[in-house]
Amino acid sequence: METTLAHMADARMRLHPQPLTAAAFAPFGDVIETRPAGDPGAFPINGGMVTRHHDLAAVELGGGRALINLFEASPYALPMEIAMLERHPLGSQAFIPLSERPFLVVVAPPGDTLDVGSVRAFITNGRQGVNYRAGVWHHMLLALDAPSCFAVVDRGGDGNNCEERWLAQPLRLELPDA
Amino acid sequence: METTLAHMADARMRLHPQPLTAAAFAPFGDVIETRPAGDPGAFPINGGMVTRHHDLAAVELGGGRALINLFEASPYALPMEIAMLERHPLGSQAFIPLSERPFLVVVAPPGDTLDVGSVRAFITNGRQGVNYRAGVWHHMLLALDAPSCFAVVDRGGDGNNCEERWLAQPLRLELPDA
Repeated sequence: METTLAHMADARMRLHPQPLTAAAFAPFGDVIETRPAGDPGAFPINGGMVTRHHDLAAVELGGGRALINLFEASPYALPMEIAMLERHPLGSQAFIPLSERPFLVVVAPPGDTLDVGSVRAFITNGRQGVNYRAGVWHHMLLALDAPSCFAVVDRGGDGNNCEERWLAQPLRLELPDA
Repeated sequence: METTLAHMADARMRLHPQPLTAAAFAPFGDVIETRPAGDPGAFPINGGMVTRHHDLAAVELGGGRALINLFEASPYALPMEIAMLERHPLGSQAFIPLSERPFLVVVAPPGDTLDVGSVRAFITNGRQGVNYRAGVWHHMLLALDAPSCFAVVDRGGDGNNCEERWLAQPLRLELPDA
């Protein structure tokens, strides 16, 4: 029986997180991170005491209003099963880590079909945040290692703004060296 | 001459930061912090893995759009002179610390007159953020001790959204034990 279960586990499709970059994440939304030196979107303000990294995420509110929230997330242990994703059709949702700790981001392109083969996983560098574009499929918040706090900017207002969808087949999320 | 300058410094009005609390800060905006256990605005989501501290700040966009930015702030040394405040008449501005380090908040009530006697100073507990209501006079970002990063949610769009005003008399901002 143990052997059978192990075999079944082995047969599952693997999902290995890749380092999060703006280019790789572009189909799903924005990476919220400081801009490199010399980027015109980073400029001094406040008499030179502050560098403003300006306008890092496309906030979509779909006729609602912007909410600022704090999320306290319990950590997951890997490997783990990814069985369900959700989407917010009416607004974007941004996660900015308040603990300098990497977290995992599991996403799939927007659309009414959710193809298990299109699911992607990323790992942040500990300082990066993400902003999911409206309608992008994503897993629930995946903190690692320790309880972690996030600032979250999303949409409030009328309408059903959360849909959940089970994958046709669960994925096994594991680190590349697992 | 040294004696005269010291005398002048001593004659300045003192501003001593008080611990930041939601009640004390209410005339100026919101304190962004986790809600206490049992508060109905803090509830479990994501299958119990996350506590959502919901809708912690009144985001005002005045016909514009929401911006998410990162501010990298150099620290100030105290005592320091508070000579000028600014206000954003068209939108709120929220500061959420990404470094667990207290910062100072210097504010005065909204209105076209800026009375030096109405200026108040607060010190955060290292995890609190603030959201300035539109039109509230406030000092530029006052990080302490070390370079500090903040997530900032404010307003983008047309119109003049920043006014600066010199105080009739500078204030000397110092810690109570200085």
